[in-house]
Amino acid sequence: MVQLDHTNLSDLAHGCALLGAGGGGDPDLGLLMAEQAVAEHGPVRVIGLHELDDDDLVLPCGLIGAPTVAIERIWSGDEGAELVAAAERIWRRPVTALMCYEIGGANGLLPVSWAARLGLPLVDADGMGRAFPEMQQQAMHLAGVSASPVILTDGRGSSVVIRAVDNRAAERLARGGAASFGGVCAGALYGMDGATARASIVRGSIARALHLGRAFAEERLQRRLAVLADELGAVVLIEGKLIDVERRTDGGFVHGSATVAGTGPDEGRQLRIELQNEYLVALEEGEARACVPDIIAVLDADTGSPLVTERLRYGQRAIAIACPGPELWRTRAGLEVVGPAAFGYDIPYAPIASPRHA
Amino acid sequence: MVQLDHTNLSDLAHGCALLGAGGGGDPDLGLLMAEQAVAEHGPVRVIGLHELDDDDLVLPCGLIGAPTVAIERIWSGDEGAELVAAAERIWRRPVTALMCYEIGGANGLLPVSWAARLGLPLVDADGMGRAFPEMQQQAMHLAGVSASPVILTDGRGSSVVIRAVDNRAAERLARGGAASFGGVCAGALYGMDGATARASIVRGSIARALHLGRAFAEERLQRRLAVLADELGAVVLIEGKLIDVERRTDGGFVHGSATVAGTGPDEGRQLRIELQNEYLVALEEGEARACVPDIIAVLDADTGSPLVTERLRYGQRAIAIACPGPELWRTRAGLEVVGPAAFGYDIPYAPIASPRHA
Repeated sequence: MVQLDHTNLSDLAHGCALLGAGGGGDPDLGLLMAEQAVAEHGPVRVIGLHELDDDDLVLPCGLIGAPTVAIERIWSGDEGAELVAAAERIWRRPVTALMCYEIGGANGLLPVSWAARLGLPLVDADGMGRAFPEMQQQAMHLAGVSASPVILTDGRGSSVVIRAVDNRAAERLARGGAASFGGVCAGALYGMDGATARASIVRGSIARALHLGRAFAEERLQRRLAVLADELGAVVLIEGKLIDVERRTDGGFVHGSATVAGTGPDEGRQLRIELQNEYLVALEEGEARACVPDIIAVLDADTGSPLVTERLRYGQRAIAIACPGPELWRTRAGLEVVGPAAFGYDIPYAPIASPRHA
Repeated sequence: MVQLDHTNLSDLAHGCALLGAGGGGDPDLGLLMAEQAVAEHGPVRVIGLHELDDDDLVLPCGLIGAPTVAIERIWSGDEGAELVAAAERIWRRPVTALMCYEIGGANGLLPVSWAARLGLPLVDADGMGRAFPEMQQQAMHLAGVSASPVILTDGRGSSVVIRAVDNRAAERLARGGAASFGGVCAGALYGMDGATARASIVRGSIARALHLGRAFAEERLQRRLAVLADELGAVVLIEGKLIDVERRTDGGFVHGSATVAGTGPDEGRQLRIELQNEYLVALEEGEARACVPDIIAVLDADTGSPLVTERLRYGQRAIAIACPGPELWRTRAGLEVVGPAAFGYDIPYAPIASPRHA
């Protein structure tokens, strides 16, 4: 299996940006932190699920809270060490490996920086296969694993440990904890042994993000889009200009919407994308053109890079695309947790297309 | 030392109501819960500090959050058991005794109900000698004891454990936790061994509340006031009518004010009492007539009982009184934590009178 170092971290960041569906925190920030940690402490070994012993302790981790706050927050870098220390106090045995609880956005990169600093391997997996706003929206939740104990820390010596009666209560309490830490904090949840991990997580997420990220090595935008169509089954929803961006930070989330007015061949069309940390639904004339759990991404038409929701600006030229979401979320059980209805939309889930490479 | 049973719980409730300075939660509610628990599980033994072994584990506990929410919340009664279970998981030894973290209001009574249900003794002490809104406003904080780990629970299977870098951070995180639990929850903080307790807590608080409560056995209001003047050094600030009551619940606190317009001999005067969970400052023509840490109480002129802030109503006939606060808070170190400036008032602390019985 690969290791993560200065040769491939920017590929990883591009892949995470795309899989983030606009959320998971700004990957540019995560990339800087991962590059610095790897430069100082050496590369991070990525291990496959088959390399885990049954009684290994795997700690899924990342940021929890509002991404609009995350981009203004200064991180100490000690967040991972404090999460691991708290976990080892709880489980009374060493943490064997870290894991990204979500591969999307900065959350696919910050665990790399923590793993580098701690000399721990990172499991080639995640809990979402993309990014989602809530903590019960995890493969481990579908598999019946408890999110508790959830560990939160500001990386400055304070921590909160939540043991909730169920995973939705854990989400509510952790969201409040993140708010008390100023809107965002580092978190670890669904801590589990190797045997449980093998039975309940999304496999190959790091490799997948690296692979997708390489599409961005293509200089020409149309060529990138062609590669993403081939690799991911991506379709272009609209090419145009952002004419309306609305965001509000409340209760540890960012809610809002962005409207793209078509230009060129899409002149006269309008696409409204609604968001809760991530892009959830793309609506045209009241009809859903794409929706969760499929991945909606907004690319900057100038740089060709995916834009996180907190970077959207009025007047930006943008291309909205959609890609099929991870298979586990397109099942009946998955849709109950992350389908449009789970976010309050009274629309049925209609897949945009079948992935050519599942 | 005494035991608490059906013969003296209402005395205790009256004393707690007075020492609560309008805060600590409605003692009527706490009294009901304590009476029921004692009826079902037997009396609670009250122990003196000298009865504690050095390595006993003492758990100060009570409600944390907004009292306006507390009076509408239905408690399961299992809050104490969940606090103790979490504490024993943390300290890995049995909790030996409970303690009221604040003697004022319901918080002087709920720990009685939990002690009865658990068969644990209650230490004749508390952390405040009255009620205060914030968690660092504790004798243990003055003595350098850490509030962490702070345990919060809804009594319904969910818990939060906070380890904060200092006691002010613990207050902020616990306040957020209470908000996530719907505005109020049960909490334990400043867990400590017997030796630490002997060196850092307010002694004799249960006995003092019982003693003061007996003043309310006097049927005639003027006689009650005379007893309170004798026992506590209480002075009457104004007799009159509530002509303005303003309260808002925000961030786990209740902020607001109440204005009493004088009647009878006080005709023409107005007293404005400002509050943050507790009555903080009584102002007349812009001058402080009484302020924290002295105890301001508002008695219902009809029943002669102290009114918690959440029970104040427009048009009520009321008598505002003030009594000297506990000695430890009138020191320089104490005033830094609970003097007027600690609540944002730019006024010097001026004691209302010396207590006749300190």
